[in-house]
Amino acid sequence: MEMNIALLPGDGIGPEVVDQAVKVVKAVANKFGHKVTFEEAITGAAAIDAVGNPYPDETHEVCLRSDAVLFGAIGDPRFDNDPSAKVRPEQGLLEMRKKLGLFSNVRPTFTFPSLLHKSPLKKDRIEGTDLVFLRELTGGIYFGEPRGRNEQGTKAFDTCVYSVGEIERLARMGFEFALKRKKLLTCVDKANVLATSRLWRETVQKLAPEYPDVKVEYEFVDAVAMRLIQWPKAYDVLITENMFGDILTDEASVISGSMGLMPSASIGTKTKLFEPIHGSYPQAAGKDIANPLATVLSAAMMFEYAFDLQDEANAISDVVNLSLEKGIVTEDLAEGGKAYKTSEVGDWLAGELL
Amino acid sequence: MEMNIALLPGDGIGPEVVDQAVKVVKAVANKFGHKVTFEEAITGAAAIDAVGNPYPDETHEVCLRSDAVLFGAIGDPRFDNDPSAKVRPEQGLLEMRKKLGLFSNVRPTFTFPSLLHKSPLKKDRIEGTDLVFLRELTGGIYFGEPRGRNEQGTKAFDTCVYSVGEIERLARMGFEFALKRKKLLTCVDKANVLATSRLWRETVQKLAPEYPDVKVEYEFVDAVAMRLIQWPKAYDVLITENMFGDILTDEASVISGSMGLMPSASIGTKTKLFEPIHGSYPQAAGKDIANPLATVLSAAMMFEYAFDLQDEANAISDVVNLSLEKGIVTEDLAEGGKAYKTSEVGDWLAGELL
Ligand SMILES: CC(C)[C@H](C(=O)O)[C@@H](O)C(=O)O
Ligand SMILES: CC(C)[C@H](C(=O)O)[C@@H](O)C(=O)O
Repeated sequence: MEMNIALLPGDGIGPEVVDQAVKVVKAVANKFGHKVTFEEAITGAAAIDAVGNPYPDETHEVCLRSDAVLFGAIGDPRFDNDPSAKVRPEQGLLEMRKKLGLFSNVRPTFTFPSLLHKSPLKKDRIEGTDLVFLRELTGGIYFGEPRGRNEQGTKAFDTCVYSVGEIERLARMGFEFALKRKKLLTCVDKANVLATSRLWRETVQKLAPEYPDVKVEYEFVDAVAMRLIQWPKAYDVLITENMFGDILTDEASVISGSMGLMPSASIGTKTKLFEPIHGSYPQAAGKDIANPLATVLSAAMMFEYAFDLQDEANAISDVVNLSLEKGIVTEDLAEGGKAYKTSEVGDWLAGELL
Repeated sequence: MEMNIALLPGDGIGPEVVDQAVKVVKAVANKFGHKVTFEEAITGAAAIDAVGNPYPDETHEVCLRSDAVLFGAIGDPRFDNDPSAKVRPEQGLLEMRKKLGLFSNVRPTFTFPSLLHKSPLKKDRIEGTDLVFLRELTGGIYFGEPRGRNEQGTKAFDTCVYSVGEIERLARMGFEFALKRKKLLTCVDKANVLATSRLWRETVQKLAPEYPDVKVEYEFVDAVAMRLIQWPKAYDVLITENMFGDILTDEASVISGSMGLMPSASIGTKTKLFEPIHGSYPQAAGKDIANPLATVLSAAMMFEYAFDLQDEANAISDVVNLSLEKGIVTEDLAEGGKAYKTSEVGDWLAGELL
């Protein structure tokens, strides 16, 4: 297969971890006889510094003509504590999601046998956890209008909006995922307070009869925030709106014990994008110490979701598991053993795949 | 001291657990020579059934003329999966908060030495946790207008609004709390996305110089959702808006291992209200099996926050700790030992206080 991949390294540790994923993608392509080309483009603070825009048109063009996008991270502390900054790196991220129509962010949460002890949660609570969030990514309070301040600057407001169409396409994807998994779908909302949540619940209720094999549960977001930690094994597929998804998927990432390991896919109307769920981790940038595995596993998701190549995806997951078992890991996972550099882990993984 | 307490038992297990708190309050009043009177009123589904309104005017009058309100729980599953229900129990709760001006919900999270093993989190992560959330309770997306649907019913919307004044009074309370504690204040927001969050951050930044002894940290809500589980000991006082507070305080309640133990206080312009953070738990209602300790500990908070009577508050916490050590507990905490009834636990606590 021929595959043209857009590379968006972004800020902080983004470039370093994307580099390792590229090594792995090349190795897999080579092993399975695919022809892969890469086209790189700028985003985030890096793009603000270069051209004053965190998601330049040229970058958008590169994404549009690609078959899939591999993304690093966006964000720079220079902008965080300056509420008045006119252009922020995160705007680029949101604009990218919107313009590429990336409406569904797929975030699996699972555990690694060799890392169970790293979780803050007790082993019996998490062993065997296998859930996936579908977070709506292009609607809700992230994008709703009006948003801003009153003239005097004494009041601020944001608007959460959802249409039946937006909810339905995400919910259908949720039902489809559930059918291929444990057949349980949890709709996470705050229908006891929010009008938008009531529309979510109503829309899901209307679709449910079309998927008689899927058991549907409705649960309030605050209850899920608890139960996710108390008993994560109770869940299979969870669907939710943008802001709830932001909070809950980050919370869920704690289960596995290392944020540095969790990949994600964003599925859209125009393309598909793959990225680690960790941030730009500026403190570690440029030091060759960041954990590249979440990005490498995002590349595995790319083979599965963008190219429907399950063997290639499995080959990557397998070498990642091997690296964990053998301790070919960065300092965050080293636990007194040898801490490998970011680039060394990437080289090792690629080497194993040859 | 003379104290007139409004009792709002509410729905589900509310009446049973409030009964036990009343026994304890009477015993403490007796021991310390206070004169306490109670006036009971209806709320929630119980009030909808009785008079068609989840927060009737008579109930509001009772609250207004009281010195403090002791509240059970609100909520009934009959209303949960009916998005079209015109009157819902939760509306009564929100109306009560708004009408009583209860702008700050104080939710401490701490651990009980004898219950550390019940937490889903590992002991070393949680031992010694002592944090408190101040959740803004009368603003934000819970109350903002407009909210509802478009005419065709194909779109729903909610509005999040905050004024500088609303943020400032909560933030000041946060700074005051921090001064009396570990002197660390964390402002939890989503300033990289929301206009309201940027106003929060800006307002807190402006106040900070008035409290030079308090260290202020700003952290995104998704990061807090993670770090709260990874390392709760890192926090002292956290301030946040209504919806984020709803999610994070419930998440935090997992740390202690039992929702049945966590009390809360809501501080307002017109009165103060005390309630367990658990819900109405309808499955257990009427069975005399619900854990009354969160409500009893809420009564302890009442003595501290409403009447400034610290010894009385401590007397209650002490007997609660004793009951935990001696295993005078309901079935949720019994662990193979004898499970006491709700009423038996209340009787035991009151007896110890005499
Ligand atoms: C950086 C931020 C805008 C973003 C979000 O909130 O969506 C991030 O937290 C994420 O989850 O990808
Ligand atoms: C019942 C519901 C409206 C309420 C809230 O969201 O505030 C509850 O979850 C709480 O936290 O007291």
